[in-house]
Order: sequence, then structure tokens, then C-alpha cells
Amino acid sequence: MAKMTNRIKALFEKVPTAILATATVDGTPNAVPIGAKKIIDDETILISDQFFNKTLENLMANPKVAVTWWEGHEGYQIKGTAIVETTGKRFEDTARWMEERSAKAGFPLKSKGAVIIHVDGIYGVSPGPGAGKKLV
Amino acid sequence: MAKMTNRIKALFEKVPTAILATATVDGTPNAVPIGAKKIIDDETILISDQFFNKTLENLMANPKVAVTWWEGHEGYQIKGTAIVETTGKRFEDTARWMEERSAKAGFPLKSKGAVIIHVDGIYGVSPGPGAGKKLV
Repeated sequence: MAKMTNRIKALFEKVPTAILATATVDGTPNAVPIGAKKIIDDETILISDQFFNKTLENLMANPKVAVTWWEGHEGYQIKGTAIVETTGKRFEDTARWMEERSAKAGFPLKSKGAVIIHVDGIYGVSPGPGAGKKLV
Repeated sequence: MAKMTNRIKALFEKVPTAILATATVDGTPNAVPIGAKKIIDDETILISDQFFNKTLENLMANPKVAVTWWEGHEGYQIKGTAIVETTGKRFEDTARWMEERSAKAGFPLKSKGAVIIHVDGIYGVSPGPGAGKKLV
């Protein structure tokens, strides 16, 4: 159990892009930039899948993820556990959110799934001797 | 064997920050932003380690890495294999490069190691139906 602070959540919402890292079960990492992201609550973030390829393949076999974001010299990494929902209320809400959001941006996108990530731990990734230290 | 094109190399050199993703042997990913990076040749990149913590622990146990960078809607991901050198010519060159580079930036940093990454494959991470496709 790890709860994101208001500052950590605010930076996640503010940055245009975060990184979603997954891995094969035998430890080959994969890291992709993602923009369609939101905070659900202090322990949960949501990423909408439009174009996931290897990421989705990895998530099907191994739910462990890292999500990293930063701005200037402030940055955070969440270690978490993901589930992918392609039916139900959370998926339908995500699909509607993406439809509205992407229409507004003039670049229509369709969600294929809601990646719901439970936060297991939070680490600093700011440069300096504290890099990598567990924060929460 | 995968060779980076001039365009791929140029974007790597241009972006201020790339992502280095590693994983434990049992597949928990870790992703951190890195700035001290350079191209060695078409199949090799170098990252200087100043503050690696979990990244270094992972690299010691599992050499598989992903390195991702992007600008706007153009982005690339390398899958590669890393070795960490803490003695010898490449490490000494890296230490000198970091010393000069960080002194110039007014933020003195000391390299603890040279992470030399052999490029095994190159993938697109631009949004769109081609996301994740192998390029080289």
C-alpha cells in the first residue's frame, strides 16, 4: 500500500507525457511514452490503451509495471500492478473520456482498454544522491 | 544486429532526456530518466552512471535494457544488452567527459561507471497504428 501525495499526483497530471514500463516474464523491459493518463485516487492511476503492442503482450503475461514522470529535476517512479479492462463501467468511462479528449485535440482516438494500475511503491528519480530512494 | 539510422541517432543526441528501463530477473520493470548519454557508433550507445541505484542492481543481475526517447510525435525504443565498465579506457573517457560536461553546466558530477549498450533491435514508439513496430 502506498499513497501518492498531492504534489506527486499534481505533477503526474501536469506533465504531458509519462513513461509506462513493462517486462516479459523473463525480464526484457519495454518502455513507451503515454499521454492518456489520469489519477483515479491516491493509490490508483489509469492509462488508456490506444496503440499498445508489446506493452499489452507484456501486461497479459506479467502485471508488474513502472510508471515514471518528471519535470526539470523533480521526478517520481511508481511500481505497481496493472489490470486491463476492456468491458464494464471503468472501460466505458475511459472510452468516453478518450473520445472527448481526442476530439478536443483534433486527433480522434479510440480506447481499446483501460489499464488500471494499483500503486505498490513510490520512488524518487530526481538526480542526486537520493535518486531511487523509496518515498512512500 | 541492428544499426541506428542517422535520423534515429540525431534525435537521441538532441533530446535532453531519454529513459533507461531495466528489469529484475523475474520481470519487475524499472524506468529512470537519463541525461548523460551519447552515441558510440551505429550499434552502441553509452550512458554514464552517476546516481543509479535499482538500475545498477538490475543491470548486475540482468543485462537486458530498453532505451526510449521521443520528441513530439517522433520516438524510438532500443532493445539492447548492457555491460557496466568501472575501469579501463572507456570508463576513463566517460569519467573525463562527465567531469567536463558537468563543470560546464555548473553542476559537478562524477561518473561511477560507463553503461555500454549494444543495440539488438529498434522499434517505433510514435502514436498511431505503427506504434511498437520493429524498424531495424
